[in-house]
Amino acid sequence: MPSQSQLEDYFAYLRFSSISADPAQASACKACAEWLHQKFSSMGFHAAIHEGYGRPVVVARSPFSEKKRTVLVYGHYDVQPADPLKLWTTPPFEPTIRDGLVIARGATDNKGQTICHILGAEEIMREEGELPVNLIFLMEGEEEIGSPHLQAFLDDHREELACDAVVVSDTSMIAPGFPSLTCGLRGIACLEVKVSGPAADLHSGMFGGAVINPAAELARLLAQLHRKDGSVAVPGFYDDVAPVAEAERATWADLPSGDAEMVRMTGVPRAGGEQGYTAWERLWIRPTAEINGLTSGYQGPGSKTIIPREALAKLSFRLVPDQNPEKIAEQVRAYLTLIAAETVRIEVTYDHGGNPYYSNPDFPEGRAAQEALTEVFGRRPALVREGLSIPVVALFHRILKCAPLLVGLGLPDCNAHAPDETFPLAQLDLGIALHRNLLHRLARIRSRSPTSLGA
Amino acid sequence: MPSQSQLEDYFAYLRFSSISADPAQASACKACAEWLHQKFSSMGFHAAIHEGYGRPVVVARSPFSEKKRTVLVYGHYDVQPADPLKLWTTPPFEPTIRDGLVIARGATDNKGQTICHILGAEEIMREEGELPVNLIFLMEGEEEIGSPHLQAFLDDHREELACDAVVVSDTSMIAPGFPSLTCGLRGIACLEVKVSGPAADLHSGMFGGAVINPAAELARLLAQLHRKDGSVAVPGFYDDVAPVAEAERATWADLPSGDAEMVRMTGVPRAGGEQGYTAWERLWIRPTAEINGLTSGYQGPGSKTIIPREALAKLSFRLVPDQNPEKIAEQVRAYLTLIAAETVRIEVTYDHGGNPYYSNPDFPEGRAAQEALTEVFGRRPALVREGLSIPVVALFHRILKCAPLLVGLGLPDCNAHAPDETFPLAQLDLGIALHRNLLHRLARIRSRSPTSLGA
Repeated sequence: MPSQSQLEDYFAYLRFSSISADPAQASACKACAEWLHQKFSSMGFHAAIHEGYGRPVVVARSPFSEKKRTVLVYGHYDVQPADPLKLWTTPPFEPTIRDGLVIARGATDNKGQTICHILGAEEIMREEGELPVNLIFLMEGEEEIGSPHLQAFLDDHREELACDAVVVSDTSMIAPGFPSLTCGLRGIACLEVKVSGPAADLHSGMFGGAVINPAAELARLLAQLHRKDGSVAVPGFYDDVAPVAEAERATWADLPSGDAEMVRMTGVPRAGGEQGYTAWERLWIRPTAEINGLTSGYQGPGSKTIIPREALAKLSFRLVPDQNPEKIAEQVRAYLTLIAAETVRIEVTYDHGGNPYYSNPDFPEGRAAQEALTEVFGRRPALVREGLSIPVVALFHRILKCAPLLVGLGLPDCNAHAPDETFPLAQLDLGIALHRNLLHRLARIRSRSPTSLGA
Repeated sequence: MPSQSQLEDYFAYLRFSSISADPAQASACKACAEWLHQKFSSMGFHAAIHEGYGRPVVVARSPFSEKKRTVLVYGHYDVQPADPLKLWTTPPFEPTIRDGLVIARGATDNKGQTICHILGAEEIMREEGELPVNLIFLMEGEEEIGSPHLQAFLDDHREELACDAVVVSDTSMIAPGFPSLTCGLRGIACLEVKVSGPAADLHSGMFGGAVINPAAELARLLAQLHRKDGSVAVPGFYDDVAPVAEAERATWADLPSGDAEMVRMTGVPRAGGEQGYTAWERLWIRPTAEINGLTSGYQGPGSKTIIPREALAKLSFRLVPDQNPEKIAEQVRAYLTLIAAETVRIEVTYDHGGNPYYSNPDFPEGRAAQEALTEVFGRRPALVREGLSIPVVALFHRILKCAPLLVGLGLPDCNAHAPDETFPLAQLDLGIALHRNLLHRLARIRSRSPTSLGA
């Protein structure tokens, strides 16, 4: 069990409503950054808050030694919006413990996982007097909105952030007790589609039948995002999808049943997706088209018999190597514009994107991470990919020349991005132990090793 | 121009936010009913507010004479919701005059049209000392939510409401200067469709591709409401559509171009609808399927990369003789349930409905209405149908044995049910004159005549 003071730190961190998507929460983000600054300073780190890059960036460095290797831990203190609030069983920013689970927005993503590294470093310093490596924490506040300023920050600070390894805990294990080293991530392209027609909402009796309904036209367009086999129907969408080695797919055959896991974890009546692929393959190596939100017309109680003036959809496309977000966004825009009826107007706006990623884990730091996971969790880690996007991962490779070690501590049913987000207290202990084990292993690597970043 | 005191009455009436769909506005409905009660009482009518039938029902009767025929004017004091509020250029419940138009929620529908009758009666009494008929006003407060209690009210009060003619002004003229007598109305069936899947919103990276997205499935279902030719694809939907006489369709050939009117009045880039029909036919004799609202997932600023737990659509179907709302609702429910994927749950809920209507206008009261319209507007009225629904019209025929005279004063571009609803001051004058002319003509009919109500 974590100590009382460790829990107090974790809960204090969770109480900030640091929602980066909501401009009204900018002050909560700032307060959270200041709390981190204070925490790192109290540990003897040299900490600084950097302004001018959107939400504040916190960098904290342990006392430097020429003799030690340097490890950078990246994480984010911003969280997803908490709505729909009414589906939380406990307030999202008042952390609560129930059945061994901490419940709060950010419990896993990413405050729970980053506090493991912070508390792990604190334990080593208390018990051993010093860290085995030069440790840098880089904590940003805009991950959930696509890290729009992180590239500029890394470019401006690449020399002071120079390191031998980057550790990121913002991914998930396959299942409790199944440690995972993540070698691939999907990218993302986020768009908004607006279909409009009449200048104002119309009486559906006075005009219905003689004017095309923008909501019906939006539905018709969205229904054409997928083919009957579940694949994405946007022309050219799969052109740049890199083939996956049969050997890699073969290693996934031993994993727990993905379909059963999907049903258990999500409550859907049946799993589903693109034909010809397992659930894990659908998540890791296949791109998707998702509708994240729909808005049109009357949404209140009862009925209002209008033809809405416009209808909007928020879309996101999960991408795999070597798809490019801007190219995909343009393909989607061209496709929807082409198939839209002339009886409506259509606007497709590209919001943000991130590149997909793959790195072969057979290099010294990658092997150190596999060994640390094996020792702490008592089982060799699965070498997996993940379905989610961490746009900064490719940035680290490109700017800091390190392939990040993605040692995810999240669990698949932690409700990340959803109401009642959780993180098990037991996972907090394991995460702290993992940080300690990994730092010691990384400290023992002799020389800077070339990393390998796949296609 | 209306007199100052007439305008003051009209504006006082418009200031009540008597939105029947919103339970929070129940007190505004009550206050509006009380204002009507007070107004009728001040005119020397015997007025009463009836509770126990949902929103209050106001009945007002002029002093009774055995020698006079009895005319009932029906109207509603409730209005549509005012949202989206930001699209109003002036507050919806603070009536304003601009360019000869009164702007307010209810300006036309139905406060503007009912005030014409109220002020018309007041003028006759002031100028002639008494009315030529026994006049009954029946004002309800639930028309915009489907008049759920009016049938019970009419059943309970059929004897005191017995009359020789019913006048309803809740329809539209084809265009300014084109008076219309409406002989047919479409019915309506309102439903809500909910598609749900996961128990909570899911991270679209962690689950996207392996779980079917309820919003995408809803879009797929809604896209199947229509065939490529614009007709409704629900099996059996057209089974009960009564044929329309070629002679009736032929009389509509002289009307102004419907497609051009649709573009001018609504601002759509092009008119559209079911192939093989003119715009007027699409509105009057063809049933429709409309999406009135869509709700799913994240609707705030920026993006939130979730698979929403559910997606909802509000649907309404405009019906023509002899379609039945309950039967259509059941056909829609069966169809959507049948085509929904097994990977989601679907609920289709019937909200309310109203029957379509047709009445041949060649009977004494119908001829009186045509003559009054001809004299007041200087042109013979078009004998038209309307696309909208007034569920109470069939009730009047069935319970009071009168085919209502639908002498609509609304204009097609009055923005009924939409922001910036308007009513021209000139139309207020014409409406008052029409009421006076019509009452005198109805008074001269010798004996109770059989009315004819079509299929």
